[in-house]
Amino acid sequence: MWTRRRVTLRPYPRGFHLITREVLAALPELGQVQTGLLHVFIQHTSASLTVSENASPDVRRDFERYFNHAVPDGWAPFEHTLEGDDDMAAHIKASVLGSSLSLPVGGGRLTLGTWQGVYLCEHRDQGGARSLVLTLQGE
Amino acid sequence: MWTRRRVTLRPYPRGFHLITREVLAALPELGQVQTGLLHVFIQHTSASLTVSENASPDVRRDFERYFNHAVPDGWAPFEHTLEGDDDMAAHIKASVLGSSLSLPVGGGRLTLGTWQGVYLCEHRDQGGARSLVLTLQGE
Amino acid sequence: MWTRRRVTLRPYPRGFHLITREVLAALPELGQVQTGLLHVFIQHTSASLTVSENASPDVRRDFERYFNHAVPDGWAPFEHTLEGDDDMAAHIKASVLGSSLSLPVGGGRLTLGTWQGVYLCEHRDQGGARSLVLTLQGE
Repeated sequence: MWTRRRVTLRPYPRGFHLITREVLAALPELGQVQTGLLHVFIQHTSASLTVSENASPDVRRDFERYFNHAVPDGWAPFEHTLEGDDDMAAHIKASVLGSSLSLPVGGGRLTLGTWQGVYLCEHRDQGGARSLVLTLQGE
Repeated sequence: MWTRRRVTLRPYPRGFHLITREVLAALPELGQVQTGLLHVFIQHTSASLTVSENASPDVRRDFERYFNHAVPDGWAPFEHTLEGDDDMAAHIKASVLGSSLSLPVGGGRLTLGTWQGVYLCEHRDQGGARSLVLTLQGE
Repeated sequence: MWTRRRVTLRPYPRGFHLITREVLAALPELGQVQTGLLHVFIQHTSASLTVSENASPDVRRDFERYFNHAVPDGWAPFEHTLEGDDDMAAHIKASVLGSSLSLPVGGGRLTLGTWQGVYLCEHRDQGGARSLVLTLQGE
């Protein structure tokens, strides 16, 4: 069984955001999958996806603090500067965190750990509405 | 063909550890897959999985040295500090390295390169026993 | 439907390189997949794969600049130094960026975003010809 769906998220501000519910809401078919995988892909090079702690908002703020420090906007050696100070840094952050997630499905639900959630990592100041491609497969 | 299995690893100390054998031992069905994929998912946000060099223990020690330098325990700007100095750093390391691996299967075995092995990356001082969800599919 | 193919890339110099065309050329069967996933795996621990901006060569040069800064060749604390100054740094970069990609397939083509391409990330001075395992599945 294969299902593919394109989802457009509402625009999020720069930072890290829990989107587990939005992803699940787009795929009611997941409830019928006994064993499978959900693939989530973001069609952009300046935003990314990761799995991390789903409870404390301060964790998500610390992600933003850390990545702004590790990959500074407008880092002096950057050559690709035409699209703004946040652009090249966003490309690098996006590749470090990754453009897709594969999540196990069991018994009609994501078999995440208790504290795990799906994050949208928005690396641009004005990223706009981001598009995801969801691909669900299983039996 | 789909097989899903939950595996609990023995507790590992903080650091990087080869677990290829433990993963394979849990899935004897892999020997019957001619073409497929093995998905390995860790159900935690302070430990992670990666593929790297399977021969020299000094490589694994250097991973630990490097990541402790890149994401320092108790980094001053961190706001999420209630769970200890190693907690927020562990969440970030886990997202940089990733919570899952997809590995190709061919002719009844993982078609890894000669020098590749699966690492458990334990980012906490007392991480305890970590749970994996293994999902094998193929024909 | 499953297809698995091993591809050997021509040797690339150290740096970041667009290889979307080489990957697609190796898998003409992709044109028949209505919904599926393409898995690309690199069988090495000192080169990696990522998805990023497919237009400006300066983006790829900035990736090389940034990662050379973030993970310096011959970083003093490294213990694993026998294989050259670029070796241990290459292992770390490869794990940060990742050894595999899963890309959605729809209507007989990769459903990447407009600006997305597949990068080979060659982290060694003399990496040689790198091998990929391509696994295509779908319906």
